Parts: sequence; C-alpha cells; structure tokens
Amino acid sequence: MHYRAVESTGEYLARLETGADWRAEIEDLAREVDAEAGWFNAMGAVQDAEIWFYDQDDTEYRSVTFDEPLEVAACVGNVARLDDDVFAHTHAVFSRESGQALAGHLDSATVFAGEVYLRTFAEPLVREHDAATDLDLWL
Amino acid sequence: MHYRAVESTGEYLARLETGADWRAEIEDLAREVDAEAGWFNAMGAVQDAEIWFYDQDDTEYRSVTFDEPLEVAACVGNVARLDDDVFAHTHAVFSRESGQALAGHLDSATVFAGEVYLRTFAEPLVREHDAATDLDLWL
Amino acid sequence: MHYRAVESTGEYLARLETGADWRAEIEDLAREVDAEAGWFNAMGAVQDAEIWFYDQDDTEYRSVTFDEPLEVAACVGNVARLDDDVFAHTHAVFSRESGQALAGHLDSATVFAGEVYLRTFAEPLVREHDAATDLDLWL
Repeated sequence: MHYRAVESTGEYLARLETGADWRAEIEDLAREVDAEAGWFNAMGAVQDAEIWFYDQDDTEYRSVTFDEPLEVAACVGNVARLDDDVFAHTHAVFSRESGQALAGHLDSATVFAGEVYLRTFAEPLVREHDAATDLDLWL
Repeated sequence: MHYRAVESTGEYLARLETGADWRAEIEDLAREVDAEAGWFNAMGAVQDAEIWFYDQDDTEYRSVTFDEPLEVAACVGNVARLDDDVFAHTHAVFSRESGQALAGHLDSATVFAGEVYLRTFAEPLVREHDAATDLDLWL
Repeated sequence: MHYRAVESTGEYLARLETGADWRAEIEDLAREVDAEAGWFNAMGAVQDAEIWFYDQDDTEYRSVTFDEPLEVAACVGNVARLDDDVFAHTHAVFSRESGQALAGHLDSATVFAGEVYLRTFAEPLVREHDAATDLDLWL
C-alpha cells in the first residue's frame, strides 16, 4: 500500500448545470479553483449515462450506455493530473424508478441536477502508467 | 456550474438510534449542532425503506417501498434550509442478502444500525425553486 | 441518536496494492498512521469479493462470494478499535460489465486497483456489544 499525508487547501460545494456533462463539470470546478488534487462526493440525477467496466484480463474498458433518466445515488471520485490536464476519476451508482441499481466508472452523463462536495489538496496527484494493471494510477 | 468555497465549522460522528427514522435522525443531528449547511456520509442497515425516483418529464417523485431488512451500502447527502426547516437531502444504496443492490432518493427508512460522518459549514445553504428542474436546489 | 464532535488529526490518500486484501490494506493504513478512529471513502476494482448481509432476526451474518472481476463503484467505512485491534467497517457497491450493481458489507476482496481517502480523528472509537442489534457498535 502506497500512501501520502495530504493537507487541505480548500473545500467547495457545487451545483452542476442542467444539460452539461457530469464529469466535465467537476473537471471545470477543479480548474476554476486551481486544484491538481482533490477528493469528491456527489449525488443528484442524470438524463443518461455512459459507464465503463475495466476488463482486467484484456486490460480494456467496456462501455455501456443507459439512455434514460437515472438518480445518482452515490458518486465518489478524485481529481489528479493526467497527460497535462485535469482528470476527475469518477465512479457512480445510479438507480431506476423500480429501485434497481446500476453502477460503474462514469465516463459521461448529462446532468439533470447535481450536488458536489470537493476537497482540494496541496500536494499534486499525477497519474502514470502502472504495469500491473495497465491503468494510469497515482502514488 | 455554480460553486462556493466553504469553511468547516465542525465535524461529527453519530450512531443512529435503532427503530428511529434514518433521515429524521440526521436532521435532528443537524439541529442539535446548529448546522444550516453540511455534507454527510453514512452506512449501516435498515428494517425497511421508502425510496423515491424523480420523473424528469412529469417533474414528480415516484415512490417505492421495500418492506424488508436491507444493508445500507452507501449513503451520501447534504443538509440545507428548506422552507424554514432543516432538510437532509439523502441518497442511498441498499443491498439484499443475495448481494442485489437497490438505490434512490431516501425519503424514510427505519434504522437498524447507522453510522454517520457529518461535516458542517459556516455558510448557510438555502433551497429555492429551480425552474429548469422543478426541484428545490441550493446555490 | 448518539453523537460526538471530533477533531481531525490527519488526512491521507492511499493506493491499495494489486493482489492484496482490500480491507486489510485499509487496516494497515490505519495502523501505519496510528489511527484509532477514522472515516474513509474509496473506489477502484477488485478481482473477487466476499460480502456479508446481516440477518436482523437471527442476528447472524450471511455471506455471498463473487468470484469475478468487479468495479468498486463506491466504498464507505470507518476505522475503530474492536477487541484490541483496528477494524475497518467497510461497505461497498460493486458493478459488473453489464452495469448491474451488487452491494453489502465487505468482508474481503482481492484488490485490482484501489484509491482511498482516509480522515483520522483524535478521539478513539471503540466498538462494544450492543444488545438491541447484537452488533459491535461505537458511541
């Protein structure tokens, strides 16, 4: 296990714009507050969602698109630098009217309403290629 | 995207009372510590749950009730003022014995056991009607 | 509702080791930073998972094992003392390639990749037997 003590530089509450992209909104927030590292929690609802599942054998992401309104029951993620840009690594749990839950790595989703808590850190996080997983990981 | 830097006024750990209502307990906690704004995370188990799904076309909530014991695998929410009272906007992910997950906007649920982390903020959050979504949103 | 104001002693970001046990890694982190109380959020992917569901009538845990790669869409938990050792009470929501969500109390899971935010507190949390639920609870 690799770890680092971090110091908080700020905390923010945000409301995402209806019609915008969920993840892009969080990355815009990170850019606006000059964050190169952060952790966030979010909730709300989306009009559609594209989620990814990582195939650990083929080391490739598989995509599933849900073209329907969904609640965002939980959303957890972090902000880091990836290839000289800000990347919000975002996982989410969605739900349908029946209560059925769907989940995965959130690539994109159209915001209906979104409430976010972001905590930023002084120490930059940088994603670099990891041989064991073929993923871009920090620390 | 609308956002605000916030300053923390306190942080709290709470254990919810067996038999009480999950959301009411969190609202009571917010009242006891005089919080008009906060963000929380929680986990535990409930004896039953009523969850809501927002119909984005009809702009009305649909309700589903699960009259059975469920784990609370994740719970995310925030505290704000709504119509001169404290409102804990609460989303949750539940699970059955099979591991099947259910999720949504938590309206009410009977606590079996509940563990909560609440962080409060100096700047009050106030929910007001938003025309685009027909929801009461802050910021 | 029982609650306590807490003071933060530190915050940490961690990357869990591929092949290690998800919960043991979090407990190791807590030991390394001398934490007797903490709250965490995590996300990532696992190679398999054993999750538990608490039978509230029989007051016994039921176990389900998923021997397949899963995304960790959300993970919430806290660190406390239990029988003179550190215990990370860990709940998680997983997902399959189809987007299907699974969830529960995480007993063990083999890390593929894991990203964790841990916040530690000055006031120790100690789990003790609770008669109403037959669980070990703090506060």
